[in-house]
Formats: sequence, C-alpha cells, structure tokens
Amino acid sequence: MSESPTTIELREEPARRVRLLVAYDGTPFAGFARNEGVRTVAGDLEAHISRVLHEPVALTAAGRTDRGVHAWGQVVTFDTRSPRLDLQRLQKSINAVLGPEIAVREATLVPAGFDARFSARWRRYRYTIWRNPAPNPFLAGTAWHLPVPLDLDAMRAASGHFVGCHDFSSFCRRPPVGPDGRERSLERTVLELEWSEPDLDILQLEITAVAFCHQMVRAITGTIVDVGRGRFRPDEIPSILDARDRNAAGRLAPPQGLCLWEVGY
Amino acid sequence: MSESPTTIELREEPARRVRLLVAYDGTPFAGFARNEGVRTVAGDLEAHISRVLHEPVALTAAGRTDRGVHAWGQVVTFDTRSPRLDLQRLQKSINAVLGPEIAVREATLVPAGFDARFSARWRRYRYTIWRNPAPNPFLAGTAWHLPVPLDLDAMRAASGHFVGCHDFSSFCRRPPVGPDGRERSLERTVLELEWSEPDLDILQLEITAVAFCHQMVRAITGTIVDVGRGRFRPDEIPSILDARDRNAAGRLAPPQGLCLWEVGY
Repeated sequence: MSESPTTIELREEPARRVRLLVAYDGTPFAGFARNEGVRTVAGDLEAHISRVLHEPVALTAAGRTDRGVHAWGQVVTFDTRSPRLDLQRLQKSINAVLGPEIAVREATLVPAGFDARFSARWRRYRYTIWRNPAPNPFLAGTAWHLPVPLDLDAMRAASGHFVGCHDFSSFCRRPPVGPDGRERSLERTVLELEWSEPDLDILQLEITAVAFCHQMVRAITGTIVDVGRGRFRPDEIPSILDARDRNAAGRLAPPQGLCLWEVGY
Repeated sequence: MSESPTTIELREEPARRVRLLVAYDGTPFAGFARNEGVRTVAGDLEAHISRVLHEPVALTAAGRTDRGVHAWGQVVTFDTRSPRLDLQRLQKSINAVLGPEIAVREATLVPAGFDARFSARWRRYRYTIWRNPAPNPFLAGTAWHLPVPLDLDAMRAASGHFVGCHDFSSFCRRPPVGPDGRERSLERTVLELEWSEPDLDILQLEITAVAFCHQMVRAITGTIVDVGRGRFRPDEIPSILDARDRNAAGRLAPPQGLCLWEVGY
C-alpha cells in the first residue's frame, strides 16, 4: 500500500506569541479576569481578538486587576496560528471597537518563551488620593477623595517598613487552599514604596513589588493612610506584619484610586 | 386715623449676593445654560440651591459653556434673601447631591456690585489634545484625540496673529440680530495665547481674552491645528480674520477638549 497522502495536507501556520501593552479605565468593568455573565476587560479583549483572527484566543496577563481598578501598563500575551495576524490592524481594530475604555498602546511579536505573567520581574502600581475638601469631577473615577488632615512624614516612616521580603498575610485576602491541600504562601518582596505630591491637592503612592497578593496594594494604602490619620504609629507596622492577620491592619482603600502602572521584564 | 401699623411687619432679610467657584465635567450635560427638558449645569445648580434655600434663585455665570465643554474655574453669582443661608452647608450639600459631575470649590459672600459676568476682566480657556496613535482611556472625555503630525512651530507662529483686538466674525457663530435690529459686534480682545507640552503626548492651548464670542476658542483651536497640518500657512491668519466669514477659517475643534479654566476679576 502506498503511504503517500491521498489528500493535500493543510499547511498550518506556526504558533506565534503576541504581546499587548494595554490601558483601561476599570470603571465599567467587573475586573480584568474573564467571568461569564459580567463585562470584564479580558472578556472584551478575547471576544474581539477571537473574532478578528477567526480563532479562539486565551489571554495571560501580568496582573489580574479587581473590579473598578484601572491599568495604564497592563501586559497580556496570547498565542495564535491565524494566517490573518496583522498586528497593526489588530491594534487599530481593538482601539476602534473597544475604545475608549480599553486601548492597546503597543502590539508586538515576542519569543515563545515570553509570558506576560511568569516573565514579569516586577509590577508597579499607583494609588492616587485627592485631598481638597471639594470633590474633583475629573478625578472622581480615578482617585480616592480623602479630605482629611494626613501626616505625610508619619506615612513615609510607615512606608519604609513594607520594603523587603515579608509575609503579607495581614495585607491580603486569604486565597483558597491549593489543590494539594496546602495553604499558599503570602510571602512577597516589595522593592520600592514612594509617596509624592504631583499637585497641591494630590497625594500619590507608587509601590513596586516582584508580585502582589490579592488586595495587597489597597490594604497597604489604607493602612498607611490610617497612620497618616493617627490611628496607628509608624513603628506599629512591623507588629501588624508579624500578626499575619488581616484584622490587625487598617482599612481597604477604595478601588478607583488604583492603577496598574507598569510591568518590568 | 392712626397711621400706626395694625399688623406686625415681617422682617425681611437683606438681599445677599453669593459667589460660587464651580468645576464640572461637561460630558453628561447639554451645556451650562438652563434649557427646559434637558440636563444642564445651571439647571441642576438652580434646582438644588432653590430647594435648599426655599427660594427660587437665578444664576449669572462668567461663561456659558456649550454642550460637552468642561469647567474648572467657572464663576457664578446669585442673590438670596433666605434666612437659611449657610455657605459651608450649601457647598457641602451641592457637592454631596450634584457630585461627582459638579463640584463647588469655593462659596463666598460678595458685595452687591460684584457680578460673575460683568465684573470679569478676563476669561482663560484650556484646550487639550492627545497626540499618541493609541487612544487614552483616561482622557477620552477631556481631550481631542488627534494622532497626526503637527508642526508646532507653525502653530505658534499662527497663534501670534490672534492676540490683540480683532473682529472675530471668521471664528464665531453669528449671533441673532439684537432687539434693536442691529448686528452685534464680534470684536474681541485676545490677551494671551500659548501652546505647551505638559507631557510627551499632550499638547495644550491656553487662551485668555477679555471675553469670547460663541464657539470662538474651538474655531481658533481648529484653525491653528489646520495650520499645524499644513492646510493654512501661519501668515494666512490675518486675511482669514479680515474675511469676517466663518467659512474662511478652519474646522471647529470638538467640545470635549475644552475647559473654562479661570476667570479674572
């Protein structure tokens, strides 16, 4: 019997990996991660890209932001074998159809070894506080309106205690137990934490870590603000970390002030 | 017959004039000026203030901004005889009820001779352009997305021709003839016009005039942008002004990039 094929083999395109740099206004979304029945950033992106490429795609992201949290520098990757891949057209069509809430700032091909989540060396978040007694209509969706006296020196002193490798159990929502029945580690390494005043009435936190656990930036921000209001002393932070108990720390800052700013690879 | 009163005279509070410094995101409004059947900034403010003071109030404003145009430093005045006037409470209740779209930044008593419109010595507007090819989700409602090459030197050269006292008929929507049957003057005095680049991808115009006619900032901005794109030469501006014909000038810049920034008294 002949082993030569009786049908013409379809030439399959090799898989290619695409990296997108994505900004979004989190206000209208129920978070980043796809979740059936609600509008999410990943859901909108995957649906649109799949339609354009005539092929289902699944996104991997550097950070899964929560409901109402924004991003300026979210990074996502996906694989495609579609012969229709044209990165410039894909970027333009996402921006035309999903905009203005979602914008693709860059679209590039990356080697197969590059992964938006696992190749990331650090993530940087920004948290913005509007301090004036009057609300700011232009920052209502992107800042925490907090018109109270804040002791910035005390806040900076408290901030120093977070830098380094710590168990952040007091500042994270406890994740479900893993499939092996063991609790997941909440040890994380904070590389930098800095407060600035880009404007008379704006206070801004920039925090960089290798990775963050769930709600960590908002819990750290809320606790440092509690220091600024005199609820904790700066030197109480080490014992709050040691407590490994979410109830030991301060309040959760609201989501709209938070923005995934940049991811380093 | 006795001339002494037979009823006790009601003590009437003297009229007091209130000045509000107001910021608003113009996106959800059909402009500033009250207009029955649609949502306007003045309509929302008058309805709320009248309810709080138990007395109808009518606002006078420094600038009647168009549909979709924003304000950071709008100034309004109104008179009240209400014995319930408490400026701090009034400001707080406006910010609580009408926010986040409308915010009262300051509320003060002013002498009866002060008028938001007629006492103003100058008005300053800002126009913001976002230049990056990718849209910016955080500026979608407050900037003109204009991802085209612009010759900023030519734009600055054109801008100089607008400063001074000119007939701006080529840059204004012709107003209806006055009650005396005569056309209203469109002579206006521009005091300053400056372009800056506060960010790599942002181009911002600040224009100050004693007063502006209708759509004047947007027509000037659109025409200077047309110079930046090479549609006009900078030295054509004087002849466009001389034409006194709206069709001689360039396009109208879209409303969302415009913001009434500050009013001088």
